[in-house]
Amino acid sequence: MPHPFKARIEIMLKPGVLDPQGEAVRHALATLGFAGIDKVRQGKLVEIDMEAGNAEEAAARAREMCEKLLANTVIEDYRIEIAER
Amino acid sequence: MPHPFKARIEIMLKPGVLDPQGEAVRHALATLGFAGIDKVRQGKLVEIDMEAGNAEEAAARAREMCEKLLANTVIEDYRIEIAER
Repeated sequence: MPHPFKARIEIMLKPGVLDPQGEAVRHALATLGFAGIDKVRQGKLVEIDMEAGNAEEAAARAREMCEKLLANTVIEDYRIEIAER
Repeated sequence: MPHPFKARIEIMLKPGVLDPQGEAVRHALATLGFAGIDKVRQGKLVEIDMEAGNAEEAAARAREMCEKLLANTVIEDYRIEIAER
């Protein structure tokens, strides 16, 4: 019987890949007067509510979703956490 | 003396707020043949490397950044984690 799981997927640009979005945020924060900011990186967070037989199956499917659709693995890293709902 | 901290900020649409981006991902996953997906929500992840006197000060500044720039608090919730670098 399938159980309800929540996959939490973080997708960030790999270290060294230029992040214009993060740089724009850093610039905007400086303009607003925030000092002491060294670096800003911006990524995506995807939460997927799914049904799966067990946590291992849920993790395997989330990995496949990242490889096929969610992440551009040439320039992005992803990290998956699985929890029961 | 200021210490280096990393603020990890998660920004998600509040529950009940329509998430067209998440819905587009759900639809694309279904088209790719992934079954058993109930819901997809997509948010932002912002990592800020900053200098601050202590963790409390770093958290307070990250909160102010969320309120002033990073989050639209009418429709988005944010969550902050502070770590030493």
